[in-house]
Amino acid sequence: MGSLFLTACGNLNSSSTSSTTTTTQSSSSGYQTTGQSSDSEYQSVIQNGSYLTSKARGVGITQNSENMLNLKAFESGLTTLSKTEFSPKDYIFREGQLLSKSTVQKWLSRKSSSNPTGLNPKDNGETDADKRNPIYVQQIEEQDYMKEENGKLVLAGITIGIGMNRKDYYQKEEYGATYTTTISKAKMIAEGKKAAAEVLKRVRKLKGASDIPIMICMFEQAPNDSLVGGTFYAYNVSKSSTLGTWKSTNLQSSVLPTTSESTAINDNDESSFTSFKNKIQNFFPNLAGVTATTKYKNKSLQELHVKITTQFYSETEIRSFTQYVAQAAKTYLPSGIPIDITIKGSDGDIQAFIARESDSSSYYTHVFDD
Amino acid sequence: MGSLFLTACGNLNSSSTSSTTTTTQSSSSGYQTTGQSSDSEYQSVIQNGSYLTSKARGVGITQNSENMLNLKAFESGLTTLSKTEFSPKDYIFREGQLLSKSTVQKWLSRKSSSNPTGLNPKDNGETDADKRNPIYVQQIEEQDYMKEENGKLVLAGITIGIGMNRKDYYQKEEYGATYTTTISKAKMIAEGKKAAAEVLKRVRKLKGASDIPIMICMFEQAPNDSLVGGTFYAYNVSKSSTLGTWKSTNLQSSVLPTTSESTAINDNDESSFTSFKNKIQNFFPNLAGVTATTKYKNKSLQELHVKITTQFYSETEIRSFTQYVAQAAKTYLPSGIPIDITIKGSDGDIQAFIARESDSSSYYTHVFDD
Repeated sequence: MGSLFLTACGNLNSSSTSSTTTTTQSSSSGYQTTGQSSDSEYQSVIQNGSYLTSKARGVGITQNSENMLNLKAFESGLTTLSKTEFSPKDYIFREGQLLSKSTVQKWLSRKSSSNPTGLNPKDNGETDADKRNPIYVQQIEEQDYMKEENGKLVLAGITIGIGMNRKDYYQKEEYGATYTTTISKAKMIAEGKKAAAEVLKRVRKLKGASDIPIMICMFEQAPNDSLVGGTFYAYNVSKSSTLGTWKSTNLQSSVLPTTSESTAINDNDESSFTSFKNKIQNFFPNLAGVTATTKYKNKSLQELHVKITTQFYSETEIRSFTQYVAQAAKTYLPSGIPIDITIKGSDGDIQAFIARESDSSSYYTHVFDD
Repeated sequence: MGSLFLTACGNLNSSSTSSTTTTTQSSSSGYQTTGQSSDSEYQSVIQNGSYLTSKARGVGITQNSENMLNLKAFESGLTTLSKTEFSPKDYIFREGQLLSKSTVQKWLSRKSSSNPTGLNPKDNGETDADKRNPIYVQQIEEQDYMKEENGKLVLAGITIGIGMNRKDYYQKEEYGATYTTTISKAKMIAEGKKAAAEVLKRVRKLKGASDIPIMICMFEQAPNDSLVGGTFYAYNVSKSSTLGTWKSTNLQSSVLPTTSESTAINDNDESSFTSFKNKIQNFFPNLAGVTATTKYKNKSLQELHVKITTQFYSETEIRSFTQYVAQAAKTYLPSGIPIDITIKGSDGDIQAFIARESDSSSYYTHVFDD
């Protein structure tokens, strides 16, 4: 599996980044990608005119069904971390092709006589929250990073994300009440390191993976009732048969406004958001709901995602509100970071969208007309 | 009502277009607007820190409750037509302040002894679709266009939209089956001209409206089951006590792909869309739904709004699909017009957004991360 032979097909001729190259193989071969919308985004592999989906497609949805925000945070965070090791300028993204759905499902289950590869501990028969063995490893995902060599795409790097539980939800009987085993941060980290070492050992044996960099990224799953998905806390780049040095990501996520149970990661950002919120919410006689999720690195704000919900009585109200929100965002929200604002009506349908890239001073606005 | 005295308040200092001016009034006064996101968009009036909502707020929702696409098409079309007479460079938008909710509701009802101002005909007692008097006038909306004079905002133009039925839905008994009276195009136009003349006469008597331009725009309501909202078919600019010359808008709307009941307005655009659709819908093993609404003027495409729905299994699939769709749009969709593409998951939540302004060659893409 050191190289891929994809049939050239379709013709996205306008794509400056896709390429179709005839190799020395007997059949015409080459590869096709989705094209690249910016230097900081990966182009992805297309095969026979269709997207090459993950061999473990769908496992993430099953494993995060109680809080889909975890899946979004996990996968987008995994791609972001991968960029530090596998630059989008040099690598092409491919959905994981080494680990199959059944392999990942077995790894995520408990170890047992019928499932020797389970990464989670054996069932010890206990049902008490503090006595039972919890499920530590909640999700695993593989991302492949490819390079072109002589007109062919070859696997040049792998990222594996491992999602670890701080809370393991379980039933004592089928369809019964849900109980929770809480896992300490230290225990989560320790179990994560064990799982990472085992996963690395197994992946190294797979075709094409014996001598390429493998990045393993550790994710703390958010609780089921969290309004923000989990966060990657550590990663490790292995260039041999063993793990490299563990590095902290220093990432944090939070929700604004803060609740009685949460404190702000940065007080200045919180007060900026509060000013913005106050400016917005009384625009109409009816109140607007204004919330945000944040992403921090080293306590410094990296991303801000604002959600506004209000009842609109006309299209002109939507247009006027969108302009007003864009102006208020310019005045009150922090500069130098990417910000997006979605405006929804009381029926939940998106009505307008406002965004600023990190390197821009102006906001892009769009009102959904139909 | 020739001038407005709004209290200056708040401070959207970053807004280059909002202004606060002290007038000679005893209290500090001036006006505030939402600011302007582009030269082609109106800024709107803010009063006491809140949006100055329409005096007839909510009537449009009631009158279009069976097909809200009509309301969106009506209001955004009304604003677009107004721009030809009241340029956003010179005028500031204000929600209608002359016609109250109860006034408009009376006008939209049938004429009767208790409702002498009703624009729709008396109930003739018939229930047969072809014998009864249908409701011709379905909705009326006022938009005000303001100018600054000596630091004050004065009413400088009015647009009135009148929505006319081609199909009037009615019940023979309360909660009974719904029947339909079909109104011919000629009859709709004739009734619309009568209603417009009457409305003009009434509006001319209102304070501040006696000697400013009044634009009256005639809208054909789409049927309740239409997948695209109605269209403005004619307009009239009055600068006196009577109507001016009627002008045709030459606007059309349609849905793509065409159905058994509809034909394409322009075959080339339809085949471009079909190529795009074919390229997209087999990207994943599961099929994607691809539809579009179009707006035409003089048979020439003005706007294209594409909607794509598919089931995603991961965030990376959303990112890859978005890039692919942007590339396919670049290759297949017509150039020189504004295009937007919304991508939704099978749960109906928006996942990504792609748009191109008319004067741009590149597409803006945004993936909703959380």
